[in-house]
Amino acid sequence: MKIGYLGPEGTFSQAAVLSAPSAPQFELRPLETIHDTVLAVSRGAVEMAVVPIENSLEGSVNVTLDALVFEAEDVRIVGETVLAVEQCLIAQESLPLDQIEVVISHPQATAQCREYIRANMPEARVMTSSSTAEAVRLVSERIRHRWAAIGTRLAAELYGCVVLATGIEDVSGNQTRFVWLSRDSGQIGVPGTELAPEAAWKTAIVFWGEGTESPGWLVSCLSELAFRGVNLTRIESRPLRAGLGSYMFFADLDGRDSDPQVVDALNGLRGRVNVLRTLGSFPAA
Amino acid sequence: MKIGYLGPEGTFSQAAVLSAPSAPQFELRPLETIHDTVLAVSRGAVEMAVVPIENSLEGSVNVTLDALVFEAEDVRIVGETVLAVEQCLIAQESLPLDQIEVVISHPQATAQCREYIRANMPEARVMTSSSTAEAVRLVSERIRHRWAAIGTRLAAELYGCVVLATGIEDVSGNQTRFVWLSRDSGQIGVPGTELAPEAAWKTAIVFWGEGTESPGWLVSCLSELAFRGVNLTRIESRPLRAGLGSYMFFADLDGRDSDPQVVDALNGLRGRVNVLRTLGSFPAA
Repeated sequence: MKIGYLGPEGTFSQAAVLSAPSAPQFELRPLETIHDTVLAVSRGAVEMAVVPIENSLEGSVNVTLDALVFEAEDVRIVGETVLAVEQCLIAQESLPLDQIEVVISHPQATAQCREYIRANMPEARVMTSSSTAEAVRLVSERIRHRWAAIGTRLAAELYGCVVLATGIEDVSGNQTRFVWLSRDSGQIGVPGTELAPEAAWKTAIVFWGEGTESPGWLVSCLSELAFRGVNLTRIESRPLRAGLGSYMFFADLDGRDSDPQVVDALNGLRGRVNVLRTLGSFPAA
Repeated sequence: MKIGYLGPEGTFSQAAVLSAPSAPQFELRPLETIHDTVLAVSRGAVEMAVVPIENSLEGSVNVTLDALVFEAEDVRIVGETVLAVEQCLIAQESLPLDQIEVVISHPQATAQCREYIRANMPEARVMTSSSTAEAVRLVSERIRHRWAAIGTRLAAELYGCVVLATGIEDVSGNQTRFVWLSRDSGQIGVPGTELAPEAAWKTAIVFWGEGTESPGWLVSCLSELAFRGVNLTRIESRPLRAGLGSYMFFADLDGRDSDPQVVDALNGLRGRVNVLRTLGSFPAA
């Protein structure tokens, strides 16, 4: 099975892919951006893909949410994997932190290490790369001897670099939640994982409506879930790209989309909104 | 009056500062990051500051929200300014787009132009700078003749650069909402603006609680507002930095924090949550 993920080799996304029990059977397809990875599923270039959707420090991965809503309506979330994230500071050879001129990484990673950078390398310029592993690859090139990347230990090893410091994220216990994407409605869960009959499920939805600005609209929407005992584990608003003040709402519900109370709650919600889409229903990590 | 903002000269933040009627009396203090700008108010290095808080395409400016909650409890939002954003592609001299090797800007600006970059400069490397104007300044240096920045026309003029294309944001009608910050409770509104007695007010709050994972908790919180006819114009969740699944909620309410129904609603809400803070109450833009 072809599996797409944010490459190159050594990214956290690759680590999430390799955590699946079926990983030895995968054909790995590293892709250049999160956006490309979501679209590769939609176009059928890969059977499944893994993308980050949420980090415990930085919040939602907006590119993933926006791509699922605006550009890949046929793609479903079919599983999730949660990984602990330990960020390392990586350079091509050992050097004192105060000699580092550029720190480069994916924006989510530099954001997770904002305090560390400010305290240890206040003069360094912060630059962005398409992934943490791409940052390590760049830093490994000979001309960049005063550059440091933020990324995984795996990437440091793959590109022959040195780890200058580990655990540099501002808050420890940092985790990232990845989702498995597929167009195939028969694919359920992380590949190779046994589905226990009593497993907990989640259902991810997105909705929006014209009532957004009336006092009780969002309350009335969420009440459709609460009054039926359907728990909400997460809610997130994102711009609907139609001007300030217009939002869509992403929510994760406890339960499977075929559970009677979830069906009932979603039917109730549908009556309150203009658009309601199920992004996926899958076994919780 | 000393006014801090995200510098250098030519940023959208500077344009927001200069839109105030009292601008001719300001001593401008461009600062290096949004974080520095919020902290400058807290430390008393400036009397007021202007920072972006929300964009109609990219959503919340997380650095601003996090700094207000975690690092500058004494700083209040006292006013807001909404600006239309027109992004320009800027280089030191005219060149065909397919010869551009690097596109550099603030991450919010590159995010707003993601489609444009993909369609017109798919081979270019995207790099990050601390502001749009800093990107233009970098591009104006002689060694970077195949670089392009995304920024304002004002910055292009200030740094002697050429505008290659205008209105390159993926969705037109893009707006950014800026807030005015102060520690002084006597400061109300955008400096120099007349406060009409019938002006509409907004109150910005943040709250969190241990009930986040129970089915009806968020609904019961929002109901405290809705049942008293207090309208919610915006709600946003952000990680509480205590692991996946723990969130704080930012909300903007219609009304002033001294209005009886707002006082009443906030008292009701306080009974449901662990922490409730008013970030500011100010005349709406």
